[in-house]
Amino acid sequence: MMNIQIPVTKKKRIVIIGGGFGGLALADKIRSEEFQVVLIDKHNYHQFQPLLYQVASAGLEPSSISFPFRKNFRKKKDFYFRLAEVKDLLIEEHVVVTSIGNLSYDYLVVAAGTTTNFFGNETIRKVALPMKSVEEALTLRNTLLLRLERALDCSNPDTKQSLLNVVIVGGGATGVEIAGAISEMKKYIIPKDYPDLKKDALTIYLVEGSTKLLASMSEEASGNALRYLTDMGVIIYLQKRVVNYEAGRVLLNDGQSLPASTLIWVSGVVAEHFNNISPELIGHGGRLLVNEFNQLKDHQDVFVIGDICLQKNEASYPNGHPQVAPVAIQQGELLADNLERMLKGSSLVPFAYKDRGALATVGRNKAVADLKKLRLHGFMAWVVWMLVHLRSILGVKNKLIVLINWIWNYITYDKSVRFIFKSSPKGY
Amino acid sequence: MMNIQIPVTKKKRIVIIGGGFGGLALADKIRSEEFQVVLIDKHNYHQFQPLLYQVASAGLEPSSISFPFRKNFRKKKDFYFRLAEVKDLLIEEHVVVTSIGNLSYDYLVVAAGTTTNFFGNETIRKVALPMKSVEEALTLRNTLLLRLERALDCSNPDTKQSLLNVVIVGGGATGVEIAGAISEMKKYIIPKDYPDLKKDALTIYLVEGSTKLLASMSEEASGNALRYLTDMGVIIYLQKRVVNYEAGRVLLNDGQSLPASTLIWVSGVVAEHFNNISPELIGHGGRLLVNEFNQLKDHQDVFVIGDICLQKNEASYPNGHPQVAPVAIQQGELLADNLERMLKGSSLVPFAYKDRGALATVGRNKAVADLKKLRLHGFMAWVVWMLVHLRSILGVKNKLIVLINWIWNYITYDKSVRFIFKSSPKGY
Repeated sequence: MMNIQIPVTKKKRIVIIGGGFGGLALADKIRSEEFQVVLIDKHNYHQFQPLLYQVASAGLEPSSISFPFRKNFRKKKDFYFRLAEVKDLLIEEHVVVTSIGNLSYDYLVVAAGTTTNFFGNETIRKVALPMKSVEEALTLRNTLLLRLERALDCSNPDTKQSLLNVVIVGGGATGVEIAGAISEMKKYIIPKDYPDLKKDALTIYLVEGSTKLLASMSEEASGNALRYLTDMGVIIYLQKRVVNYEAGRVLLNDGQSLPASTLIWVSGVVAEHFNNISPELIGHGGRLLVNEFNQLKDHQDVFVIGDICLQKNEASYPNGHPQVAPVAIQQGELLADNLERMLKGSSLVPFAYKDRGALATVGRNKAVADLKKLRLHGFMAWVVWMLVHLRSILGVKNKLIVLINWIWNYITYDKSVRFIFKSSPKGY
Repeated sequence: MMNIQIPVTKKKRIVIIGGGFGGLALADKIRSEEFQVVLIDKHNYHQFQPLLYQVASAGLEPSSISFPFRKNFRKKKDFYFRLAEVKDLLIEEHVVVTSIGNLSYDYLVVAAGTTTNFFGNETIRKVALPMKSVEEALTLRNTLLLRLERALDCSNPDTKQSLLNVVIVGGGATGVEIAGAISEMKKYIIPKDYPDLKKDALTIYLVEGSTKLLASMSEEASGNALRYLTDMGVIIYLQKRVVNYEAGRVLLNDGQSLPASTLIWVSGVVAEHFNNISPELIGHGGRLLVNEFNQLKDHQDVFVIGDICLQKNEASYPNGHPQVAPVAIQQGELLADNLERMLKGSSLVPFAYKDRGALATVGRNKAVADLKKLRLHGFMAWVVWMLVHLRSILGVKNKLIVLINWIWNYITYDKSVRFIFKSSPKGY
């Protein structure tokens, strides 16, 4: 295998795997006067994952929640982006093996995040629609719209209903948000766009294994989300698990089955996997074990940040931090400082998570927020949710276009990006 | 094959194949008090083809130049849209055969347009990138961006240059516009986004078989376009044809060959093909022969409008009209009136094309316009071009978002939609 062509300098080379929230925060903050930085990602853009569900439900364009890495790092000296998939980490040799060649490093930062956990069920992997990337959200949008078109021309009533049944598996924030968004499509879009479908034809099921929705939030937030979704006509099954998909039916663990063409799978994640990692470095959920400085166990020059790392803080997070954007961002920013400290021989600062709360939105004027000193729901929580997300989206033009879309959709009760666009590069 | 399920009414049923400029103009204008209208298209949206090249060159989002049919026709009574491909026309039986079933009609309107003409060369069909649909434009964007990424990591200098060579075949408006747009990417985007590529690494060739660019426009317009593109560094070959693609090289008819991974094919169109059409109904370019009322030869209840029809007007257009949007729109609008006249037993009005001129844009502040009484080039033509196109795009929000993008791109010299998004619906 060839080597990836990056100029050799006297500076230490940091290789960052993954430009999600953690990798991006680090790459933005690290000083290129002191390090050469190589960012490797399998997409050529950063994706703003919290709004994937709006892409999937035709409310926003994919490009509005994406930002090209090359554009973001234009002004950064001695910075290199490479579009590639990382296969192996050869930690002893200080080399990463990628789809386009090998690359050596002085410091390695693994910020590769997580992928959808299908719990080893190959049938479900083939049939189900995950929602961890912009491309997957686009695929979900394409598929949802195509199912509606196909339902219209189906003369068998059972097949027709199956085309119109949507089963969402996983009652975390993503599951709640996509359930809300699809039920708004059902209420505001379908009667106008598909007058030849029965008004209530689309049926949305939300299946959650635990005893409540939004398990990581307060009882109050969970209760409000449950009430909002029930009022919007979503059929919610708690304490049930999906165990298989057979002959067009979603099978639950209690023996019940739901006929449904569309199975949306947002029920859990597992850390991205690399070859050549010894098992004692891996904790629950496939996460890589790190110390308080995000250093991989027994490897001082390998750092792991964000959803893929497992940093146990005995006092406050004995099972690791929640796998959310703020943890990744704070770890990325701290690591930028710690790497400079390392270079100077100063002692490193341990990570301490500043939890500012959690938010989830269900629909128009309906959200829940557990802030530090305040719990909100309804319109106020929804406004807070919008402001927080708008502020976090990368790029002034993206902010502007998302805002126009939100205002437009709010006034018109519309979700206007209802296109089936298929595309893949030719020759690859 | 099942029948497509459309309610049977006492009204006459018009089936329109294709929701391009012609089909859309007809469907918009026809009165649903008097007809039942069924529109069949293989996409669920109308596409604004004149701006495809801006999607392909990452200047605009696909959704900005697309508009969902269902949304456009929400308020139209007794109107039905079906997402399907039409295979056969059974003219004697008054039936169209589609991918989702058969459908009978009282009046048939064929407005299916044209497709890219590869002149029977299967190798070129496989390798080349056409640009007749939003999906093809998106594929071109994805491919162009991926080629740049791959060039960066190519250690063989010949392969690298081949990845950076773009050959555009066809010097009509589309060829001129995409050549201009890619050379602006070369000038304004690549030096900033890809500082590790040589400044002039990207080489753009434009190959045209005739003696001038923009063959259908004035000598003045052709000359200006040639001068603009040459100044922008595009290498233009006139009176040359591409005859094949072999071993990574584009072969020309004079024996010359150009090593190039990217072959953009906008060199000609051929009418969409249906089975079961007798050869004497077909004229040059595969176009269907119609009389002055757009009626198919010998078939009073079958109409053909737009690019797919060949309407010879001995006085002014002995070889048929140019295959451009204004002809299609005017034919669609006239047909709406003529169908109502037919219903009332009045005599039909023959088509007379009102030619308002032609426009093509090359880049920032650079366009050419042959208007009725005025020829413009440069900045003024460019402003006219923008106003005409902005006015024609469907939907207020689309106009607004296109305008914001144009202003943004103008001020920042940026084309911001530089994403590689791959997607296709699951299970289809």
